[in-house]
Amino acid sequence: MRIRGFAPEDWAQVWAIIEDVVRAQETFPYDPALTADEAYGTWVEMPPGRTTVAADGGRVLGTAKMGTNRPGPGSHVATASFMVAADARGRGVGTALCRDALDWARQHGYAGMQFNAVVESNRAAVELYRREGFAVVGTVPGAFRHPVLGRVGLHVMYQEF
Amino acid sequence: MRIRGFAPEDWAQVWAIIEDVVRAQETFPYDPALTADEAYGTWVEMPPGRTTVAADGGRVLGTAKMGTNRPGPGSHVATASFMVAADARGRGVGTALCRDALDWARQHGYAGMQFNAVVESNRAAVELYRREGFAVVGTVPGAFRHPVLGRVGLHVMYQEF
Repeated sequence: MRIRGFAPEDWAQVWAIIEDVVRAQETFPYDPALTADEAYGTWVEMPPGRTTVAADGGRVLGTAKMGTNRPGPGSHVATASFMVAADARGRGVGTALCRDALDWARQHGYAGMQFNAVVESNRAAVELYRREGFAVVGTVPGAFRHPVLGRVGLHVMYQEF
Repeated sequence: MRIRGFAPEDWAQVWAIIEDVVRAQETFPYDPALTADEAYGTWVEMPPGRTTVAADGGRVLGTAKMGTNRPGPGSHVATASFMVAADARGRGVGTALCRDALDWARQHGYAGMQFNAVVESNRAAVELYRREGFAVVGTVPGAFRHPVLGRVGLHVMYQEF
């Protein structure tokens, strides 16, 4: 598996991952009716941001996007998002994507990375981020409606470089 | 002073307030080079969101925008932003705008209101929000570069209805 920059020919596989994640409504506060065109605009970052894929040969196992969290006086803090294909989870794909995003942010001079809305019931993600150096700075109670668990919190997570 | 919906003829006065706030870089993580056109797109909310002004006769003293904080599984939480003209501060304009936004959010069935990035050195705002029922759920350390104070934190503040 290799992490590399997104190329337009990856889109069909990337969209399949996004569509699956968004329709499930379990881990991302995105519109579940998101269209492919809207997703492209949201997920495929223009410079200075960046979008990556975790590829195993021609197969896309996961994808990430990264960029500046807020403009102006907030522009020294990066953010990123990660999605892994359902049948590729538990194999370190998310960890590899996260480490690559952190490397990218450090190389580009960011002072830290912030995640704005990590669903607290998404244990795999929360634990992965903790292992990679992030801490929960706060949790907005009940800010995410999980289809099975009901209202769960959204963590803000942060790592200073 | 009366809080009412924004009308296009308010724009010149609203833009003057936004421009002053954004250029100062002390309270909003917005691009300090924001243009009037970009500001219009950012500040003037389309339904289901809403933009208001605090008006004293023909004079606009302050402005607010409000809407849904996140789509899909996050869409039961509202958000809002407030700006008051420099020479109208300390007179309750922000409080009136905030109370109106809270009324609007309750009437529209939101479960709570979240502020995503309140500059911690902006004491007047933080205290106003506390008085109106918000609590700090977490602070991202150093996430805002203040022109005088250097890096200060950004509070996430929340109020459940």
